[in-house]
Amino acid sequence: MQRGDGRNFNQLRPITITPGFQSFAEGSVLIEQGKTRVICSVSMEDRVPQFLRNSGTGWVTAEYSMLPRSTVTRTQRDSSAGKISGRSQEIQRLIGRSLRSCVDMAALGERSFIVDCDVIQADAGTRTASITGSYIALYLAFKKMVDMGILSKMPFTSQVAAVSVSIFKGNIVLDPCYDEDFQAEVDFNLVMNDRGEFVEIQGTAEGKAFSRDTLDQVLKLGEAGIRQLFDIQKGITQPQL
Amino acid sequence: MQRGDGRNFNQLRPITITPGFQSFAEGSVLIEQGKTRVICSVSMEDRVPQFLRNSGTGWVTAEYSMLPRSTVTRTQRDSSAGKISGRSQEIQRLIGRSLRSCVDMAALGERSFIVDCDVIQADAGTRTASITGSYIALYLAFKKMVDMGILSKMPFTSQVAAVSVSIFKGNIVLDPCYDEDFQAEVDFNLVMNDRGEFVEIQGTAEGKAFSRDTLDQVLKLGEAGIRQLFDIQKGITQPQL
Amino acid sequence: MQRGDGRNFNQLRPITITPGFQSFAEGSVLIEQGKTRVICSVSMEDRVPQFLRNSGTGWVTAEYSMLPRSTVTRTQRDSSAGKISGRSQEIQRLIGRSLRSCVDMAALGERSFIVDCDVIQADAGTRTASITGSYIALYLAFKKMVDMGILSKMPFTSQVAAVSVSIFKGNIVLDPCYDEDFQAEVDFNLVMNDRGEFVEIQGTAEGKAFSRDTLDQVLKLGEAGIRQLFDIQKGITQPQL
Amino acid sequence: MQRGDGRNFNQLRPITITPGFQSFAEGSVLIEQGKTRVICSVSMEDRVPQFLRNSGTGWVTAEYSMLPRSTVTRTQRDSSAGKISGRSQEIQRLIGRSLRSCVDMAALGERSFIVDCDVIQADAGTRTASITGSYIALYLAFKKMVDMGILSKMPFTSQVAAVSVSIFKGNIVLDPCYDEDFQAEVDFNLVMNDRGEFVEIQGTAEGKAFSRDTLDQVLKLGEAGIRQLFDIQKGITQPQL
Amino acid sequence: MQRGDGRNFNQLRPITITPGFQSFAEGSVLIEQGKTRVICSVSMEDRVPQFLRNSGTGWVTAEYSMLPRSTVTRTQRDSSAGKISGRSQEIQRLIGRSLRSCVDMAALGERSFIVDCDVIQADAGTRTASITGSYIALYLAFKKMVDMGILSKMPFTSQVAAVSVSIFKGNIVLDPCYDEDFQAEVDFNLVMNDRGEFVEIQGTAEGKAFSRDTLDQVLKLGEAGIRQLFDIQKGITQPQL
Amino acid sequence: MQRGDGRNFNQLRPITITPGFQSFAEGSVLIEQGKTRVICSVSMEDRVPQFLRNSGTGWVTAEYSMLPRSTVTRTQRDSSAGKISGRSQEIQRLIGRSLRSCVDMAALGERSFIVDCDVIQADAGTRTASITGSYIALYLAFKKMVDMGILSKMPFTSQVAAVSVSIFKGNIVLDPCYDEDFQAEVDFNLVMNDRGEFVEIQGTAEGKAFSRDTLDQVLKLGEAGIRQLFDIQKGITQPQL
Repeated sequence: MQRGDGRNFNQLRPITITPGFQSFAEGSVLIEQGKTRVICSVSMEDRVPQFLRNSGTGWVTAEYSMLPRSTVTRTQRDSSAGKISGRSQEIQRLIGRSLRSCVDMAALGERSFIVDCDVIQADAGTRTASITGSYIALYLAFKKMVDMGILSKMPFTSQVAAVSVSIFKGNIVLDPCYDEDFQAEVDFNLVMNDRGEFVEIQGTAEGKAFSRDTLDQVLKLGEAGIRQLFDIQKGITQPQL
Repeated sequence: MQRGDGRNFNQLRPITITPGFQSFAEGSVLIEQGKTRVICSVSMEDRVPQFLRNSGTGWVTAEYSMLPRSTVTRTQRDSSAGKISGRSQEIQRLIGRSLRSCVDMAALGERSFIVDCDVIQADAGTRTASITGSYIALYLAFKKMVDMGILSKMPFTSQVAAVSVSIFKGNIVLDPCYDEDFQAEVDFNLVMNDRGEFVEIQGTAEGKAFSRDTLDQVLKLGEAGIRQLFDIQKGITQPQL
Repeated sequence: MQRGDGRNFNQLRPITITPGFQSFAEGSVLIEQGKTRVICSVSMEDRVPQFLRNSGTGWVTAEYSMLPRSTVTRTQRDSSAGKISGRSQEIQRLIGRSLRSCVDMAALGERSFIVDCDVIQADAGTRTASITGSYIALYLAFKKMVDMGILSKMPFTSQVAAVSVSIFKGNIVLDPCYDEDFQAEVDFNLVMNDRGEFVEIQGTAEGKAFSRDTLDQVLKLGEAGIRQLFDIQKGITQPQL
Repeated sequence: MQRGDGRNFNQLRPITITPGFQSFAEGSVLIEQGKTRVICSVSMEDRVPQFLRNSGTGWVTAEYSMLPRSTVTRTQRDSSAGKISGRSQEIQRLIGRSLRSCVDMAALGERSFIVDCDVIQADAGTRTASITGSYIALYLAFKKMVDMGILSKMPFTSQVAAVSVSIFKGNIVLDPCYDEDFQAEVDFNLVMNDRGEFVEIQGTAEGKAFSRDTLDQVLKLGEAGIRQLFDIQKGITQPQL
Repeated sequence: MQRGDGRNFNQLRPITITPGFQSFAEGSVLIEQGKTRVICSVSMEDRVPQFLRNSGTGWVTAEYSMLPRSTVTRTQRDSSAGKISGRSQEIQRLIGRSLRSCVDMAALGERSFIVDCDVIQADAGTRTASITGSYIALYLAFKKMVDMGILSKMPFTSQVAAVSVSIFKGNIVLDPCYDEDFQAEVDFNLVMNDRGEFVEIQGTAEGKAFSRDTLDQVLKLGEAGIRQLFDIQKGITQPQL
Repeated sequence: MQRGDGRNFNQLRPITITPGFQSFAEGSVLIEQGKTRVICSVSMEDRVPQFLRNSGTGWVTAEYSMLPRSTVTRTQRDSSAGKISGRSQEIQRLIGRSLRSCVDMAALGERSFIVDCDVIQADAGTRTASITGSYIALYLAFKKMVDMGILSKMPFTSQVAAVSVSIFKGNIVLDPCYDEDFQAEVDFNLVMNDRGEFVEIQGTAEGKAFSRDTLDQVLKLGEAGIRQLFDIQKGITQPQL
């Protein structure tokens, strides 16, 4: 199968990660995955949510939003609607959980790291690109805090990245763009760490339910894609390698 | 492994489904799964969301809420907070998608079926119990509409049910209660249809990532549990069998 | 006059009070009055509103809400509207005042008792059934706190119960059901204590104003009804009698 | 008993009604009752609420609000809180019902009359002064519409006015001011028409329940006060008498 | 040019300032400028915004709102809309800045003075009348606090007043009324102190941009008008002169 | 005077305008003015606000928002606060008015052009950069519509641009950066068209009032700056010149 944009079924879109995109942030990247572009920026605050006070441990949380014209037709701002949309809430909860899975909270002390994911352009896969990019933004923020002596060591317990897989016209395709995603029968979001373990699996078959066999193929394809993302991330965090 | 409430790792909690719980609704059940109790009620409206107008097809959607004292300590009402919590939104979106996966929208005509899931008591598994129970409430509503000649046939394309699986102290357990769920390393919610296909898979490892091998065991255990739920549902829909 | 459901003008609907309905609550009942069904549950919190801090006295307050399909056609949730409806606010203020009238606040210490009244089914009289049922839920909560040594004695100063009376097609009827209430010319809600005193009187004549003489008959009829409710309440609180 | 401001127990505060206070309104008054001052203004709109469309009949509704410094210490604006307070909602519902009781809705045609009651200064009795004053504002608006030929006749079916009565230190007093109201054991709001009928009775005994005998005295005292208010209203509407 | 209401282009509307309008406030006036009428009232609170805590200095802030029927057709309340309108926010920020420009914050101690500007009738120029009137309300509040020994001296550093100027049918007119303002090509709001300095200049040319030369004439006309307002203010604050 | 960043008092920061930044928009630019960076994107919709329906004319409006980490310390999202901040509202109203001043609304037909200004990085002057950039984004959108035959001609009546001027430590400086702006005694925002006319003048002296003479110098300095901005804009719209 040849895909609309010429890719093979198992091929990621071209990925560029620009570190330092928002220069005031503790850590910041612009991640571009095909036409999808997301700014991920990290802010450190010297306080933690209520349930962690006096626990000595920290927290990582995320907020996700789309610029109104990141989409093909304009999307109303959450602030105009007066509340965060259900979709945004669901995504920011996913990003937060995924990042927390790879961080040793005790190593943060009583500090919060807030990751803002703002979508400049949405051509599908914004939530998985947000996770992949936020790992780097968080890396940059942690590194800065280690360099300043605020953290005593890098608090990561693993690397984390994410990818989407869709079943589109009966074919399983890695990292779908909007045209593929929009018509997909099933959508998967896979989040993994670099020990080859799953952090989050979400498979949603509104159009057409899927078999156990299909799931196995999806997981294999996604895992291969995520392994490539780990290499791209390492290009930023370990440039010498 | 013996569980806290005496169950085996692969055993569901006792389930009771009481049809006709809210007598004004087009269809209604109280589903009790152990100490978890949810009212699922269906309302039909002669209108569809904006994007379906003049399409000739209908819609199924869900709302989910917990009574303030369904929980061990009182939970603030969403209405007092002035907005629906992120968790509630995520759950009601899942319930809606799961139900739509088993309904032929064209067979509904331009009508909406709104499923209200109100949790009377929450001892874990409220979202999966909501799906299992809502299928019956929807069945009752559809049947009433067929009997009244408003629908020409039952619009179901399959049966749908859901179950949770947790990894708790390293063991994989079916249908965890709150004590198990609260301490779980990984949570899975599985939604399947009666053709043995997956409608939704959600695996969330905030505590500890999980391997491919673990996932395989989880899916097998969950599938066996859901097969039992299909039989319980059939006890209501096909009592003669 | 024979009423639609066969009752006499001075007859209450059948009443059932099920204690312990929400098992996590400090006190809980399901009260069923004809087809009207309300869950009343009490939560204790170790804090009081701002204006009572350091006063040594406690507080009793109430929240009231209807499940969307408690009504003949579905009612939108307050949480979707983003605010509590005027009607709900008015009712929960009435329930709170009525309960406070029969409790010695000083005997509570600096603790709040929050009474949640959630209407499962609404066939008129939900606010008065909420008061009658909440008295029992509060009784059960207080009793538990006395048994645990948290309160030193039962803080009640009296028993409290409530009933509706309507003028319907020119007749004065006790405890109207929805069909009678909907067409009523005048609605009364009466709250009394077991010393035969009035705690709250509300008479509302949107359709047709009423004379002093009519008021006298209404009060007499209501008082007789409330005396029966006190006996039903005692069946729970003093079962040996 | 001599009252704090020198009045007898059965004496109203001095009342002044200034017609035409807000000159853009269809009808407007400033009513001053002692230190309590309320602006009541009426706006006509050529549309009715949803449930009255195509019914040929009109509607009268009210909104009530207090200026922040109408009170002894500043009260936060409802607009800053982002919602109308429960107390304001309860009061505006009462005002609306009271006014509707004296108007023939069919005579309005499909038009809404919105009565805005804005409290400039609050020294108790703002809701009853709002009703008494709004009757005149509505009279002025209706008269203007009759003069302009928009209404064919005055749509009033009766005159309406309201007064408060409190039980304060064991004494029953008419039209209490803030110092009396604040310490009252029981508060009554009575709304009557000029046929001597009751439109609304509200008796609230948070402090101390009241007997049937007390109620009878309250009603008698209130009725005498309201009769004086009818005369004051007639001084505006029938100045020649 | 003769204006619609007979004034010369450089003539203010008649101005009346009634001190003590809301008698519970620390300082209060009703300012009437032609048909425009605004209540300005000052409340003192013993706390300051977060950013000033422990700074030893105080704060002056303003809130602005229009009664629904201050306008020719009824305006919806901000509280019904659930938020403060953009226009109201813009105006109350302007009033606050203007008043702060003439007050020595250190002389207030850690106290807030909240100025409520409530428009009873709006015939243009409500924001400038609010500033001119609020200066007097603040004067009265400060004086009361000095008299009570709470402030050790009057904290004013200058007098402040404001006026509007419009370009209307090509003519520059001082203090336009609604008919002139509504059709104006350009609107100016000028705030000055009594040292002849500008505190705020706002010129808005939605209809037709304006030249530098026009601006010069506007400033000259506005300054002359504000000088008259200073004299009117002094009539209240220095009546003996 | 030498400024902190080495500029002369009358020197703009380096400006880069990148057209086509958000590729789905009808027109889009990234404008960078020193470290200040704003995305301006235009969306066309085939509908107009209520007050323009059936008028045959169109509308231009703007929305303004800052990314949370555009600022030195993180700013809470408006969507989390549940409402648009007063500052954002004030700015987006200014942008909208400024753009409307240079567009012939009748030439748009009944269409709305919504300009979204999203601040990526805020180093002062975000509102003026938004205006300068939005003119180009609007130019690109109009041009596309003319090329597609949807508009018959370019609807601009003039070019529009804006700049800030501050009085900082007694010196008048053009286009201040954050360090200068933060400590400024007076802030001016000037909007002009290319006929040398003023569209909007805002001068705000919270710190220290300013004389007429100072104002004259500010206007002269600002005008010279804006003339340079017109040339930079022309570099995009008339690249051949």
